[in-house]
Amino acid sequence: MRIDIITVLPELLESPFAHSIMKRAQQKGLLEVYSHDLRQFTTYAHAQVDDYQYGGGAGMVMMPEPLIRAIEHFQVERTYDEIIYMTPDGERFEQKVANRLSMKGNLMIICGHYKGIDERIREHFVTMEISIGDYVLSGGELAAAVVVDAIGRLLPGVLNDETSALFDSFQDDMLAPPVYTRPADFRGWKVPQELLSGDPKIVDAWRFEKALERTQQRRPDLLED
Amino acid sequence: MRIDIITVLPELLESPFAHSIMKRAQQKGLLEVYSHDLRQFTTYAHAQVDDYQYGGGAGMVMMPEPLIRAIEHFQVERTYDEIIYMTPDGERFEQKVANRLSMKGNLMIICGHYKGIDERIREHFVTMEISIGDYVLSGGELAAAVVVDAIGRLLPGVLNDETSALFDSFQDDMLAPPVYTRPADFRGWKVPQELLSGDPKIVDAWRFEKALERTQQRRPDLLED
Repeated sequence: MRIDIITVLPELLESPFAHSIMKRAQQKGLLEVYSHDLRQFTTYAHAQVDDYQYGGGAGMVMMPEPLIRAIEHFQVERTYDEIIYMTPDGERFEQKVANRLSMKGNLMIICGHYKGIDERIREHFVTMEISIGDYVLSGGELAAAVVVDAIGRLLPGVLNDETSALFDSFQDDMLAPPVYTRPADFRGWKVPQELLSGDPKIVDAWRFEKALERTQQRRPDLLED
Repeated sequence: MRIDIITVLPELLESPFAHSIMKRAQQKGLLEVYSHDLRQFTTYAHAQVDDYQYGGGAGMVMMPEPLIRAIEHFQVERTYDEIIYMTPDGERFEQKVANRLSMKGNLMIICGHYKGIDERIREHFVTMEISIGDYVLSGGELAAAVVVDAIGRLLPGVLNDETSALFDSFQDDMLAPPVYTRPADFRGWKVPQELLSGDPKIVDAWRFEKALERTQQRRPDLLED
């Protein structure tokens, strides 16, 4: 999978993709992630990429021309399955969306900054708008990093143990059960006996019960679907 | 405001806090963010901080002892308003939560990795569990970065124009209206006449109508609250 990210802050995305699981995914050749500086694509003086918004008001808007030049530059090189714009009013990013996107070949992600991008880019070029949640960030960069991470770890071969992602929260519409490790007794707080039983049936039953209980308490909406 | 982040991957968080608005917030002395390596606090050999989970199964669990040593180390220095654990089964992070947290003084954020942290830490030390959305990430680091960014930009004086954040999506339970900038005609796609009218009443009415329309289409749930 290849992901091209268009941003005014490529340097902000350096460390998240250079470590841990995203680094491994790239080293194994399973994922290519490139952050491109939008300013490379502007023809305006002083590498300008934003301007005041029509109608007035605080906050700058990213101009259509540099964005289109960037999009069309990469489209010459390859076909993109989706051109994604990260925005708080987009489709809610959920595990199912991550699963679906992890099966694509080439993705382009546009990071908004300031007040966002000119609406005409959204209407005529963007194929998918994603929100990682109901909150506002300084820009789309961290949201893009979240999407790349959520997708990247699902690519076959990226996680050490391929069974691991299958038991994550949300993959079966349930939250994950509590987990415990050594020591069995820590400051008098003990690991539940069921997990120490050595009997896979008892362990599985306990985990299912706790996952269900936690889901009922915290996220009953997941069980309604 | 001061935020201490406990993580096994402090290097992953370097660039997100070193640029743009988060950098400015720190330079202005409005925000202090520190990423601390959990491995500094372990007494186990080879800087071990995780172990196999009781009951068996794929994925490691972060041990209670190094985490408690880290938490108690910082608690000696100051009182924390919240000790936050980033986890997919936590309270959903939303703009209202960001608003609320932006008024605190000291926050500690614990980033899970692998299968998560030992449940006993969650029961006895963590005061708030936050999820940035219904998806699973490689670890809590990017989620922590998202929370810090969403909070940090709300601190008075961080954004250039303080009125700017007030008109973001979600601050009034509505999505933001479309935005446009120069040129007024781009490839034949024109900016709406209302925004070019120069009449604030016409502009405001158009923005309200479009914000409402977009919210009805994309997020009718926001209007029900």
